[in-house]
Amino acid sequence: MEHQYKVFAGSSGKPFAKRLCDYLGIPLSPSQVIRFSEGNSYVKIEETVRGKDVFLVQSMGLQANDEFTEILFWMDAFKRASAKRVTLIMPYFSYAKGDKKDEPRVSIRGRVCAECIELAGADRVITMDLHSPQIQGFFKINADHLKAMPLLCESAKILGLDNAVVVSPDAGFAKEARGFGTYLDLPVAIGVKKRDGHDEQARILEIIGHVQGKDALIVDDFTISGGTLIHLAQGLKEKGVKKIWVLLSHVLLNEESLKKIENSPIDGIISTDSLYNPYIQNSSVVKLISVAPLFAEAILRMENDRSLSELFHHVPPQVLKASLPDKLLTFNK
Amino acid sequence: MEHQYKVFAGSSGKPFAKRLCDYLGIPLSPSQVIRFSEGNSYVKIEETVRGKDVFLVQSMGLQANDEFTEILFWMDAFKRASAKRVTLIMPYFSYAKGDKKDEPRVSIRGRVCAECIELAGADRVITMDLHSPQIQGFFKINADHLKAMPLLCESAKILGLDNAVVVSPDAGFAKEARGFGTYLDLPVAIGVKKRDGHDEQARILEIIGHVQGKDALIVDDFTISGGTLIHLAQGLKEKGVKKIWVLLSHVLLNEESLKKIENSPIDGIISTDSLYNPYIQNSSVVKLISVAPLFAEAILRMENDRSLSELFHHVPPQVLKASLPDKLLTFNK
Amino acid sequence: MEHQYKVFAGSSGKPFAKRLCDYLGIPLSPSQVIRFSEGNSYVKIEETVRGKDVFLVQSMGLQANDEFTEILFWMDAFKRASAKRVTLIMPYFSYAKGDKKDEPRVSIRGRVCAECIELAGADRVITMDLHSPQIQGFFKINADHLKAMPLLCESAKILGLDNAVVVSPDAGFAKEARGFGTYLDLPVAIGVKKRDGHDEQARILEIIGHVQGKDALIVDDFTISGGTLIHLAQGLKEKGVKKIWVLLSHVLLNEESLKKIENSPIDGIISTDSLYNPYIQNSSVVKLISVAPLFAEAILRMENDRSLSELFHHVPPQVLKASLPDKLLTFNK
Amino acid sequence: MEHQYKVFAGSSGKPFAKRLCDYLGIPLSPSQVIRFSEGNSYVKIEETVRGKDVFLVQSMGLQANDEFTEILFWMDAFKRASAKRVTLIMPYFSYAKGDKKDEPRVSIRGRVCAECIELAGADRVITMDLHSPQIQGFFKINADHLKAMPLLCESAKILGLDNAVVVSPDAGFAKEARGFGTYLDLPVAIGVKKRDGHDEQARILEIIGHVQGKDALIVDDFTISGGTLIHLAQGLKEKGVKKIWVLLSHVLLNEESLKKIENSPIDGIISTDSLYNPYIQNSSVVKLISVAPLFAEAILRMENDRSLSELFHHVPPQVLKASLPDKLLTFNK
Amino acid sequence: MEHQYKVFAGSSGKPFAKRLCDYLGIPLSPSQVIRFSEGNSYVKIEETVRGKDVFLVQSMGLQANDEFTEILFWMDAFKRASAKRVTLIMPYFSYAKGDKKDEPRVSIRGRVCAECIELAGADRVITMDLHSPQIQGFFKINADHLKAMPLLCESAKILGLDNAVVVSPDAGFAKEARGFGTYLDLPVAIGVKKRDGHDEQARILEIIGHVQGKDALIVDDFTISGGTLIHLAQGLKEKGVKKIWVLLSHVLLNEESLKKIENSPIDGIISTDSLYNPYIQNSSVVKLISVAPLFAEAILRMENDRSLSELFHHVPPQVLKASLPDKLLTFNK
Amino acid sequence: MEHQYKVFAGSSGKPFAKRLCDYLGIPLSPSQVIRFSEGNSYVKIEETVRGKDVFLVQSMGLQANDEFTEILFWMDAFKRASAKRVTLIMPYFSYAKGDKKDEPRVSIRGRVCAECIELAGADRVITMDLHSPQIQGFFKINADHLKAMPLLCESAKILGLDNAVVVSPDAGFAKEARGFGTYLDLPVAIGVKKRDGHDEQARILEIIGHVQGKDALIVDDFTISGGTLIHLAQGLKEKGVKKIWVLLSHVLLNEESLKKIENSPIDGIISTDSLYNPYIQNSSVVKLISVAPLFAEAILRMENDRSLSELFHHVPPQVLKASLPDKLLTFNK
Repeated sequence: MEHQYKVFAGSSGKPFAKRLCDYLGIPLSPSQVIRFSEGNSYVKIEETVRGKDVFLVQSMGLQANDEFTEILFWMDAFKRASAKRVTLIMPYFSYAKGDKKDEPRVSIRGRVCAECIELAGADRVITMDLHSPQIQGFFKINADHLKAMPLLCESAKILGLDNAVVVSPDAGFAKEARGFGTYLDLPVAIGVKKRDGHDEQARILEIIGHVQGKDALIVDDFTISGGTLIHLAQGLKEKGVKKIWVLLSHVLLNEESLKKIENSPIDGIISTDSLYNPYIQNSSVVKLISVAPLFAEAILRMENDRSLSELFHHVPPQVLKASLPDKLLTFNK
Repeated sequence: MEHQYKVFAGSSGKPFAKRLCDYLGIPLSPSQVIRFSEGNSYVKIEETVRGKDVFLVQSMGLQANDEFTEILFWMDAFKRASAKRVTLIMPYFSYAKGDKKDEPRVSIRGRVCAECIELAGADRVITMDLHSPQIQGFFKINADHLKAMPLLCESAKILGLDNAVVVSPDAGFAKEARGFGTYLDLPVAIGVKKRDGHDEQARILEIIGHVQGKDALIVDDFTISGGTLIHLAQGLKEKGVKKIWVLLSHVLLNEESLKKIENSPIDGIISTDSLYNPYIQNSSVVKLISVAPLFAEAILRMENDRSLSELFHHVPPQVLKASLPDKLLTFNK
Repeated sequence: MEHQYKVFAGSSGKPFAKRLCDYLGIPLSPSQVIRFSEGNSYVKIEETVRGKDVFLVQSMGLQANDEFTEILFWMDAFKRASAKRVTLIMPYFSYAKGDKKDEPRVSIRGRVCAECIELAGADRVITMDLHSPQIQGFFKINADHLKAMPLLCESAKILGLDNAVVVSPDAGFAKEARGFGTYLDLPVAIGVKKRDGHDEQARILEIIGHVQGKDALIVDDFTISGGTLIHLAQGLKEKGVKKIWVLLSHVLLNEESLKKIENSPIDGIISTDSLYNPYIQNSSVVKLISVAPLFAEAILRMENDRSLSELFHHVPPQVLKASLPDKLLTFNK
Repeated sequence: MEHQYKVFAGSSGKPFAKRLCDYLGIPLSPSQVIRFSEGNSYVKIEETVRGKDVFLVQSMGLQANDEFTEILFWMDAFKRASAKRVTLIMPYFSYAKGDKKDEPRVSIRGRVCAECIELAGADRVITMDLHSPQIQGFFKINADHLKAMPLLCESAKILGLDNAVVVSPDAGFAKEARGFGTYLDLPVAIGVKKRDGHDEQARILEIIGHVQGKDALIVDDFTISGGTLIHLAQGLKEKGVKKIWVLLSHVLLNEESLKKIENSPIDGIISTDSLYNPYIQNSSVVKLISVAPLFAEAILRMENDRSLSELFHHVPPQVLKASLPDKLLTFNK
Repeated sequence: MEHQYKVFAGSSGKPFAKRLCDYLGIPLSPSQVIRFSEGNSYVKIEETVRGKDVFLVQSMGLQANDEFTEILFWMDAFKRASAKRVTLIMPYFSYAKGDKKDEPRVSIRGRVCAECIELAGADRVITMDLHSPQIQGFFKINADHLKAMPLLCESAKILGLDNAVVVSPDAGFAKEARGFGTYLDLPVAIGVKKRDGHDEQARILEIIGHVQGKDALIVDDFTISGGTLIHLAQGLKEKGVKKIWVLLSHVLLNEESLKKIENSPIDGIISTDSLYNPYIQNSSVVKLISVAPLFAEAILRMENDRSLSELFHHVPPQVLKASLPDKLLTFNK
Repeated sequence: MEHQYKVFAGSSGKPFAKRLCDYLGIPLSPSQVIRFSEGNSYVKIEETVRGKDVFLVQSMGLQANDEFTEILFWMDAFKRASAKRVTLIMPYFSYAKGDKKDEPRVSIRGRVCAECIELAGADRVITMDLHSPQIQGFFKINADHLKAMPLLCESAKILGLDNAVVVSPDAGFAKEARGFGTYLDLPVAIGVKKRDGHDEQARILEIIGHVQGKDALIVDDFTISGGTLIHLAQGLKEKGVKKIWVLLSHVLLNEESLKKIENSPIDGIISTDSLYNPYIQNSSVVKLISVAPLFAEAILRMENDRSLSELFHHVPPQVLKASLPDKLLTFNK
């Protein structure tokens, strides 16, 4: 019997989509993306989707504008090809960072992207660890919001965390940090920093909470240049912290930033494959677990009309098993 | 008295916008575009637009996805900053080429872009020489559609065209070619080619009409690789054509393609500054006239509630004067 | 078992709908249309459609305004009667001709009609041979676009075409004419005419390509007065053409125009039943094949979630067989 | 100084629009409507409307489908021609009669028309004496609703009404009839009839209230065939009524129905020019007063941002004067 | 097998929803409504609805603003929880009374509520006895409109109506009153009253029709203060009427008004449980029959894609049986 | 000359609107709100607004559902009365608290309210101190967002703050608390509390930062029961804090809660009149400054097309002067 749903991949979603299909036990459906010499993108669905439930895998990651534009064309193509329902699997939604008018006369970019994705034809979106939970409200369509936290925590347990403290790099992430602390039964400390506008070079002011003599488990939703993390790590070292691990949902480091991380007191970063980042595929300091099984599990539940909500708080064993890399999580730094 | 309208420029629209403001006799209003290291674009309006009539200059050109995404953010920013009316000045609309489902399961990309621009807040669009006139109907908002033809023809007259024939590179442009012929009082010939899908390497089959011993004035809306033009030029040479000039609305040639043109039988190309193309700024074979005065004249008429329609058929003298480059149009090939 | 879909007919769609239902092997569902003495139209669905997939057959043909208005009422009635999905079968979409602003201050009528049909409740439209392919982009909903070309070509083969040439009446139809030529393996010629605004009395300027001593197969999407065809036919005769056949997707001739055709050098016209035209039901010079089996086949594929795209390029044998009239295509002129 | 607003007329609105412009003291702006031989309508605005406040005069009257379709094209054309605001002057809205689902599986036609008019671009509608006041709520845009009652009453006074009774032809119009009675200080009677479905041949059951020996002033919003009125008149005659006058907002009688009225006991009908009805232009039994001055007065108030509401209850003297026909209202029956 | 549809109750819909579920033989699904101390309402669905057909029971009754706001939140919550289709069961729609602009500068409140309910996510609404049938047209979504009349008439038969007359309290309800008369084969009389604006204290002017020596069965859609009914009852008594019964679709009486009814000539009121009114649960003068079985029957037909229309004209026996209260309808006044 | 804008007040906005009008030097425009005995709300604008710029003052405060529903009716009434532009002045937006799906199967109530307000006709909203800045993105229309912070800080200076520390009651408000600290040049401390679901009785866990021997200036956006504030105050006292002052944007305390505050270690609360709270009009412990002058100043700038952004960071002297109560801010506790 033919499957009632099909999974397609956008230009940067192919590796993730293949892991997703492996878990689901179905083949990845064929499609084509061309980037012409003058800069235009073109998408083509290469098998019928008439009456089918379609999932498109594409994050807005390191090529956010290309990926966003392409998403719009995919949505339109699926709708015009008579797909029954189109779900965007967008593990990382880069423009979600633009979620407010923190300065006069700027755009609320997350809302703009959300509205255009809806307009182009998306019936649903599944994403992960948005910069703020309010962004779900930028979508009128159903936007399911998965959490990498349980999976990251389970991975962190492999590192041995007998004497560790969870550290939030700023007050804004303190609430989420407490979630990690509760899951791992660890205390929490907070770095209070001052960030100037769009300057990524934030200055750490203070570390609140007891950290001396402990291992630190820094948690955050994403890093771009790694600057905040390195400053925090240096501050923690000065306070007598021993090992420094970092858990991140999304990693946007480029080659240069990665080098800085490698030369910093950070012992290792565990993150996810929520976006395709070529620089960290073979890094010794950044290790990735896959959230594709988590999204696959969500798809299975959707297709069987079961609730997603329990996935937000714990990881089913089969998901955990499929998420870890083949080789154990070891950092040879 | 303060002007009731303001002109802003997107990331690739600054040179055009400056020429526009020169014609209008107003300063270009300040704005800021940042492209962050992880790929996100950010726009900021740097003076109040509350209650103002705003014009944003940005083509979708060689960075179409970045420019499109940025346009959406500009529109949203202007609206949220309480601009009275927002007009997008988009001299080249790259995705207008995606205007039909010529294959199964593709997107009608021009419609997608048009709808998103509307949704983001544009009240009006002014563009030029769309790939097909139907695209105006993809917009629900007012989309004014200027024509470079009269200006290109006036520029061509400088070359001396006593014994010339207008040549359309294919049947699809034959109707427009006749427009050039009528304006210049010249006969028309048609190249009948066969183009395979998205393969720019089209093969010329035949040249219909008398060309022998004449100069040829090839006309087309745009070129990407120049392949079609070069093949046509070679074919015309074989038929005994003498000089070969080309008039194009939009030039998307890159460095490599430009070199091929220089080594071809083409004596010179006259085009416009409808998009910013760094490769042709100092070319000996491609000369640009500016359509900024034409758009500026359109703005003046709009602001004074006068009709635009006469601009479609002839060029006012002050526009022609301002459009020509400082140095005469000479091709030293 | 009850069928999951039902077919209804608008006031001018009954004959077509009956042919459609014959092919599908289902009865035409009952409905009522009243045109009151003061000019109002009223529609009523006469059996339950709750939860059903509904198809309404109605072209915009010779009573375009009545048929358009009625379509809107049908869509609304189906939606308010809780139909699951409503598909408009509109073999001829008359206002698609109004697809651009070729003059200042006119309406883009095709877009207006498309939007209203969507607003009134249509979930999908299936139409045939639109005046330009861009019109598909005027619809936001799924608009499938069938082609009569393969069917017309198969019918033309019956006429015997050993020494024929396909002739396009103008440059605008040249691309489509080549499609006919390729299908029939025949050369192509082009009439280059000048049409003035809305004046149907276009003047033929020239015939490009070799036609002397051949039979001509003129192809076009529609004719209203037949004027262009007759002028072309006269021109072809002067050039030494023998037999002159015409293939048209849609025929809008009235009684007077039909008489002119009969008195012209045209030997016969093959067209389709895409709209109901009372004047040509028993014509000796215009013969109709039915495209109802083609639409029926499209419905069958839709209902079984199969792709429509292969129908665009060739005719399944069972469709061809059902499309031809009972009596062979003979012209006793 | 140029007027800031312009008045245009649709195909059936020209006589009304001229009367409107006479009152306003401005010329009627030029426009063109073509009805092609194949049934399509085409509209063209023949002077610039950029930035102007535009009024289009067109009722949905005896050619409701043509007039409705044309209205949509006008709205679109005005919007695409950059009119600042477009107001539809629609003195009679025929499809307002389709205001409910009084049978299963029918359309609510008034809502469909209202929505399409909005979609096509109307910013406001001014209409008169809708079949039910709820229809104003079918519009999301501003729909001003004028009343002919005061004007009709003032005209009726000329007839001499010393011993008259206002008669409503059915219970549904009883509330409005009381309004006429209050304005004229006359008693009210009600005919209770039974109407079967769409059968205009309604049977009068009973006349409630004292009518014997009086003159009757029958009031209603519209008549199509006159059947109800004639039956009522016959019933009133049987009850000993002397003169029988009728006041109607809208008259849709055709030639045949008019003859029946002339042969009935009805002494005279006073109605308005809310729609163009060629059959009653020179009738001896139907006399028209013009509501164009009333609409003109509404426009003047709108343009000066004054309230319309007082127009609902009494007629300004200058309006009354301009509304009456040149010759006195005399019925030579 | 799990049911494909689920029924939920809003804060004031629980008793009705339980009766509905009893008839359907399914459990009422769990949900939670909190009204916080500062006035905010909060709703929570307490079991998965992913992919389910959901019915929410909530009238806009005596707490119309709270109930309306809550409905919006329910609709949004169901949509965001991925329900397949959401139907609002709203037996009484209080703001339907605000259906026209009968004064200048007021809101058409019924349209506002209808639009917001749609926007918030309702796919369908089922309601009963709207104040005017046009209100169905305020909804763009499918709005089914049930009638209590057959059920009320069947209940009235129990009272014994050998020598009764149906009385409409005003001209506006005369058409509906005739429906009751036809169903019960009884004559009809009409009270002609004058109501001033929003003053519930309407004055009865006259009673039209023969009532002397008969029992009266007053019918109306709703009562708020009972004032109109009491005045009418007093008038009827003066005219020699014997017993006075009242049939009402919706009862909004409060404690004080109920007392006035008890002290009036009215012998008994039969109404429905269309809204939750705590004051009449144990009244000796107002007896309620349940319309929950009628709505349940409508749901069953919808789920089986059967027509609802026959429910509008007669009551299926199983519905009638389930609708009557356990104790016979006796009034011990 | 007549003013081009008019200010109206909703049922709970009258005192605020009067202060606004005093600052603006214009009269409050007349309007009427009726709450009928059966619970329906009704609004009426009592002077013409045709062509006017209209401001409606109404918070969603202690009767949020009534106030929200009424806002929708006002917006609709203004639009249907032809107001040129309608701005909602909503100093407190209660449902902004419902800004995310922090539990499965709940509504994002802030988005629902924002969308309905837009749908009903609001062109702009001006509000103050939303619960999270992302909520601005729930509006598609222009939503200006004022800040009470500078005004509250200026008021606090009157208290004497030589040796004070700003205290945030939780991590979530830490970023804003730093803003107060920077404005007042004071250090900041943070209370880290644990809040369970919707239980307002949050437990304070810890106070981070140096507070001993200092006065505390607690800052927060709103309080409902005062529970968090009292617990924090008790904790601060235990840590050796001297005076305890509180700055709040919005106060929702009821009588009982106010009493608890009076009996707590809190010396005084300074808040604003952003919503009408009858319980605190004459409180000895809660003192209100008016933000009406701030909103009035925003209106003046809007009407003169000047930027609002500078109002976010400092208070113009004339605003400060008008905001303070007549009697000095003294707490006689």
